[in-house]
Amino acid sequence: MQRTIAALVASFGLLALGAPSPAPAQGASPAIAEDFKPSSLNQPGQDYPQVNSQGYVRFRVTAPQAQSVKATLGLGGQGGTVLHKADDGTWVGTTSGPLDEGFHYYHLEIDGGVFNDPGTRNFYGSTRWESGIEVPAHDADFYALKDVPHGNVQQILFPSPSTGTQKRAFVYTPPGYDANQSARYPVLYLQHGWGEDETAWSTQGHANLIMDNLIAEKKTRPFIIVMTYGMTNVIRPGEPGGLAKFDIKPFQAVLLDELIPYVDSHFRTLADSDHRAMAGLSMGGMETKTITTANPDKFGYVGLFSGGSFSPEDVANAPGFRDEVKLAFVSYGSRELDRRAVAPPGAPSFDPVANHEALKASGFNSVFYVSPNTAHEFLSWRRSLREFAPLLFRD
Amino acid sequence: MQRTIAALVASFGLLALGAPSPAPAQGASPAIAEDFKPSSLNQPGQDYPQVNSQGYVRFRVTAPQAQSVKATLGLGGQGGTVLHKADDGTWVGTTSGPLDEGFHYYHLEIDGGVFNDPGTRNFYGSTRWESGIEVPAHDADFYALKDVPHGNVQQILFPSPSTGTQKRAFVYTPPGYDANQSARYPVLYLQHGWGEDETAWSTQGHANLIMDNLIAEKKTRPFIIVMTYGMTNVIRPGEPGGLAKFDIKPFQAVLLDELIPYVDSHFRTLADSDHRAMAGLSMGGMETKTITTANPDKFGYVGLFSGGSFSPEDVANAPGFRDEVKLAFVSYGSRELDRRAVAPPGAPSFDPVANHEALKASGFNSVFYVSPNTAHEFLSWRRSLREFAPLLFRD
Repeated sequence: MQRTIAALVASFGLLALGAPSPAPAQGASPAIAEDFKPSSLNQPGQDYPQVNSQGYVRFRVTAPQAQSVKATLGLGGQGGTVLHKADDGTWVGTTSGPLDEGFHYYHLEIDGGVFNDPGTRNFYGSTRWESGIEVPAHDADFYALKDVPHGNVQQILFPSPSTGTQKRAFVYTPPGYDANQSARYPVLYLQHGWGEDETAWSTQGHANLIMDNLIAEKKTRPFIIVMTYGMTNVIRPGEPGGLAKFDIKPFQAVLLDELIPYVDSHFRTLADSDHRAMAGLSMGGMETKTITTANPDKFGYVGLFSGGSFSPEDVANAPGFRDEVKLAFVSYGSRELDRRAVAPPGAPSFDPVANHEALKASGFNSVFYVSPNTAHEFLSWRRSLREFAPLLFRD
Repeated sequence: MQRTIAALVASFGLLALGAPSPAPAQGASPAIAEDFKPSSLNQPGQDYPQVNSQGYVRFRVTAPQAQSVKATLGLGGQGGTVLHKADDGTWVGTTSGPLDEGFHYYHLEIDGGVFNDPGTRNFYGSTRWESGIEVPAHDADFYALKDVPHGNVQQILFPSPSTGTQKRAFVYTPPGYDANQSARYPVLYLQHGWGEDETAWSTQGHANLIMDNLIAEKKTRPFIIVMTYGMTNVIRPGEPGGLAKFDIKPFQAVLLDELIPYVDSHFRTLADSDHRAMAGLSMGGMETKTITTANPDKFGYVGLFSGGSFSPEDVANAPGFRDEVKLAFVSYGSRELDRRAVAPPGAPSFDPVANHEALKASGFNSVFYVSPNTAHEFLSWRRSLREFAPLLFRD
C-alpha cells in the first residue's frame, strides 16, 4: 500500500494535482491572438478570466490598493502569471503560454494571501474550493449540454455507522429511469482524486452529460453512476505527508458495507458483480485497484484513470481477480506518460503500457487508453469515462 | 407590477438582501465571550471564521502585504468589520455586535477589491458566489441532518424552447418515493430570492432536511419540491435598477409551459391544482403572487415568505382566486415588520398584518407567521417552510 502511494506520488505527479499543465514550448511562442472570450465557467455577468483561440488565459482582477497579484495558472516552473497594475486600478496579466485544452484549477495570490478569482466559479480541488477555468477543447462536443434526453444527478444521504454520520453521495440515473419502472440497471462506482470530493465527477467532470450523450448515440448501455467522498479519513489542508497518511480501510468500509447496500436497496439496480463496476481518477484509481483486487467477487469491471495499472503480478496476487473481473481499463493523459522519462531517481518503475501489454499477452481483457495532449487533469478523465463506459456490462 | 417592486424595494429592504441584520443594540454591549468555534460552513480543516455563544463573529484572514482588510458582516450602517493586522501577518477582527441567529452572506474587501473568505464555503447570493456563515440557532434542530429516512435532491435538465436552452432545476423527492412505485405525490414549486439561484433552497435553505424531519415526525404529508432559477431575464451584477427591470413573463413561460409539464411527465405527481402549490422568498414571493393571482386555476396553495401579502383587493382583482386557492400563507421576519415604522417617505403603505386580518375576516383561509428575531434572511425562510409545509395538500 505504501509502495503504491509512493509510486503514485513519485511517478504520476499526484501532488501536483490541480496544477495546470501547459503545452511544451514549441520553439518561439506565436503572437498572441487578441480574440479572448470570457471562460464558460465565469460567474454570471463576469467578463474575466478570458481564454483565446490558442489557449492563452488572461486575468483581470480589481484590487486598487494591492501590492501584488498573481494567478497560479501559467507555464510550469515559472510560478504562475504575475498580474500588472493598469491605469484603472485593475490588475491584468496573460499566461506566458497556451494551456492544455480542458479544465484547470487555480487561485490568486494577493499581497501574500490565497484567494479565489471573483470572476469565476469555484470547484473543490486540493482540499479547498478553487477557482476554475475551461480552455475549450476541440472535442468538447462529447460533454456538451445538448437537446437530448437527460438523466438526473441525485444527492443522497445514507447512514454510515462506521463513521457515525449521514454521508453524501451523488447518483446519476440515466434517461428513462423513472419511466421504466420495471427496468433494473448496472452500477458504476466512480471516484474522484486526492483533494477533490463527491461533487467533482458531476461538476468539472460532466459525467452526467457524457453519459446522456453516449446514451443518445446508443454508444453505451444505460447504467447508474454513484459518486461519493473517498478521503474518508480527512486530511487537513497543508498537512505534511497527507497522502502518505491515507488509509483505505475507512473508505472501503463505507463503500462495501454501507453505500453499496444502500444503493442496491434504494435504486433499481442489478445487484451482482457482473453488473457492478468501479473506477476512479488518480487517488480514486489507487482506491479502485486496492479495493477491487481485495474484493474481486464484488466488481466485474475495473477502471484506473491516471491512477496506476495492473501488472500480471498484481492479478496473480489477487485470488479470483482473473476469473471474476471481465475488464481492466487503464488510461493516462499523454503528458503523464511523457513523465516516465523524467521520473525522480529511485522512484519505483512506472510503465503502465508494459503492464498492459504483459497482462493482455497473459490472456486478460486489458484495455489501455491515452488522452492526447492532456496531463493529470480533468479532460484526460472526461475522455477516459467516454472510452470506458461503452465497454461496460456487455451481457 | 412596478408598484409591487417599488413596495418590495422600499419597505422590505430587498436591495439589502444578503446584508446581515444584527440584533438591535441593547444598551451597553455585554463582554464578548471567548468561546469562539469554527462556523459549521467552513471549508474542511479551516478554523476561521468563528462564532461565539453570543453570536459575535471573528474573522482571520492571511494577507501579509495587504493594506486593508474588511468583512461586510457587522452592525448595520457601520460598513462591516474592519480587520486589524496581527504580528503574525494575519488580519483579525470581531463584529461590533452579535448577529442574528441563522445564515448570513458576506464577503471581504481587500485593498479595495471584493473577494471571498477562503475559510468558508460559497453560496450564490446577490448575483455572485458569496461567503457564508452560520450563527447557530436555538431551534436549529428542525433543519439538522439526522438519522432519519432522507429524501433525495435531484438535478434535472429540462428543455426550454422559450429560452432556447436546457434549463436546470432541483427536485426534492421524499423518503420512499423510489420504493412506493404506485404512489403519486403533490408538488410545491419553491422560488429563491433576488440574486440567488436554484441552489439556494436546498443548500443554505436546507429545504430537504426540513422536509425529511417534518416527515419523520409525521407533521407533514410527503410531497415533491421543485426549485428552479427565477431570474430568467438575467440581470448583470451592479446594473442600476436591475430589480426594476425584472420581467415576470419569461419566467412564467418557463414555469407554466415548460417546467410543470416536464415534472408532471417525468415524476409521479398528482397533476392538478389541488395538489400543486407555489411559494417563494422575497422576489420569489413577488413572482408567486404575480403568477398565482394570474393563474389561480393552476395552484391550490400559495406562500409568500418576506415577499408581499394579499389584500382583499388583490383577491377581488384575481378572478377565480377565492374559489380555487385553499390557502394564502404570508410570513416575515420580525425585524422586517419593525421596519414598517421606518419606511422611507413616500413608500407605498406596507401592512401585511392588516392585509391578513382583512382577508381572513372576508372568509379566506389566510395564515400569517412571524419568525422571531430574524430579518430578511434565510432563517426566516427556513422557519416559514417549516410552518407552511404542514398546511399543504390536506385532502
